[in-house]
Amino acid sequence: MAVYTDVSDGELQSFLESYGMGRLISFKGIAEGVENSNFLVETEKGRFILTLYEKRVSAADLPYFLGLMEHLADKGLPCPLPVHDLEGKALRELAGRPAALITFLDGISARRPSTAQCAALGDVLGRLHKAGADFQMRRENSLGPDGWAQLFEAVKMEANGIIPDLADELEDELDALSGKWPEDLPEGVIHADLFPDNVLFLDSKVSGLIDFYFACNDQLAYDVVICLNAWCFEPDVSFNVTKSRALLEAYQAVRPLSAAEREALPILARGAALRFLLTRTYDWLNRDAGALVQPKKPDEYLRKLRFHRQVRSASDYGLDES
Amino acid sequence: MAVYTDVSDGELQSFLESYGMGRLISFKGIAEGVENSNFLVETEKGRFILTLYEKRVSAADLPYFLGLMEHLADKGLPCPLPVHDLEGKALRELAGRPAALITFLDGISARRPSTAQCAALGDVLGRLHKAGADFQMRRENSLGPDGWAQLFEAVKMEANGIIPDLADELEDELDALSGKWPEDLPEGVIHADLFPDNVLFLDSKVSGLIDFYFACNDQLAYDVVICLNAWCFEPDVSFNVTKSRALLEAYQAVRPLSAAEREALPILARGAALRFLLTRTYDWLNRDAGALVQPKKPDEYLRKLRFHRQVRSASDYGLDES
Repeated sequence: MAVYTDVSDGELQSFLESYGMGRLISFKGIAEGVENSNFLVETEKGRFILTLYEKRVSAADLPYFLGLMEHLADKGLPCPLPVHDLEGKALRELAGRPAALITFLDGISARRPSTAQCAALGDVLGRLHKAGADFQMRRENSLGPDGWAQLFEAVKMEANGIIPDLADELEDELDALSGKWPEDLPEGVIHADLFPDNVLFLDSKVSGLIDFYFACNDQLAYDVVICLNAWCFEPDVSFNVTKSRALLEAYQAVRPLSAAEREALPILARGAALRFLLTRTYDWLNRDAGALVQPKKPDEYLRKLRFHRQVRSASDYGLDES
Repeated sequence: MAVYTDVSDGELQSFLESYGMGRLISFKGIAEGVENSNFLVETEKGRFILTLYEKRVSAADLPYFLGLMEHLADKGLPCPLPVHDLEGKALRELAGRPAALITFLDGISARRPSTAQCAALGDVLGRLHKAGADFQMRRENSLGPDGWAQLFEAVKMEANGIIPDLADELEDELDALSGKWPEDLPEGVIHADLFPDNVLFLDSKVSGLIDFYFACNDQLAYDVVICLNAWCFEPDVSFNVTKSRALLEAYQAVRPLSAAEREALPILARGAALRFLLTRTYDWLNRDAGALVQPKKPDEYLRKLRFHRQVRSASDYGLDES
């Protein structure tokens, strides 16, 4: 969550005129989205989120992200809809950055998800995976195993300064996973960052899925374990198998996992924990004192990784043996 | 602008229930207000700003600030209105901090105010001063001359590390002003921080005055020169006398300045520049790497101070000799 770039009122007004948005009524920087600058914009035509894409998001990927939101919204998923300007473009420029205007979605993200919310998440994740099946664009996961190795190279000299022996533990894990990482599981569009921050609820229903800026094509079950990591641990990093079971059951009611996917869950979960451990380590070492948002300390994901390392089978996640 | 404190959804929901606010629809941290945490909250009953008061605002002063907003709104000024809970209280507690819910105001702040906006500001400032005349509570200006001396003590050892010879220049200015500071000018409620950030416009009209957390009782003309400093310099810190004249004429159309006030303007303007130079110096030296908002470098206000030091009379601000 951050607001990095300041936008002048003149620039903003002419930007909004390109969309035929009418009179500007309100404009506030919001503390949301680590990677980009986000503003809540209200005009006579409604409320929108204005996103300015900062350095970490590649401009070449933006058509994929915006196209995907549109594709999923079209299939009935509660995604923001990119607004097209009067020339039909969904991607413009503002304050020297790529910029897009997307619809505002009501709802509140769960600071501490309940079991019912984990189930609702499982259901919507299954629907997202099904709806993405016929999306025509493709984007590799830059934070898959190759990306982890690169991140490890970037952090290995300094990682022990954050947590003793972290560099060794990262390296051992990279080695362990490299021989075991599955490659033949069903693939499709994954959100890849579906943390509670990125899911809005109204009452007990999911009213919004946001922040598609890590979405890519990868093994679908990998998206499931990213969610297990993000939704099913308590604040003390203890694993809540009741929440995990609820999430997986609701997911499988929409899209049943294959036997190979179920078997791969513990390895996938280790990979997902390693991915966030690596990026949080990198972000911690490269934090910018001037940023509006400070990164999270990486130790949470080290503890999650260690948990998955001692998991015996998918039944430890609450899946019934079948 | 900042969001410091995180609020859980459970805490928030029960807080809003105390107001009978109905179902929560949206909740976003907004990048506004340097001193406090601010959130945009929407419920079935409307849109509100939730403010959590952080350390720099004294809890003992909150009834003054909230009471003043209510007083001014009651007189027709476009101020946020503190919402009372079901027990009638405007001040509650949330996440361990004093907290208030105030009405949301439409409008956009001017990043670079036009002459017309300076005139609109002068008019509303005059109306604010008139409307405050019968406000019964009283708060001393903690950032008046006594406060400057304390701030100087806190920064003098390190100030030269920001700008060469800054400590000497600050001390000379404190000495110069101490003999000349007026004390008999008309007093009343002043906003004391009416920067463009804190004034919302819809089209060319002022639609909101916000952030009353420096408001106090002091000489009214001091509020006028705070605005001259904040509104009438261009981005390159050149003084725009056209904007100043527009501001002062509009102000005087509502509340004419006395001869003594006019004569005192250059000294008051130096004091106002010194006040912000001192607080920005202090904030710069005490900036917190973890804060969501980084302070402004103090050199802008040093240049404004130097400008006012070479002003001969109020006519240099565009006031006609009378």
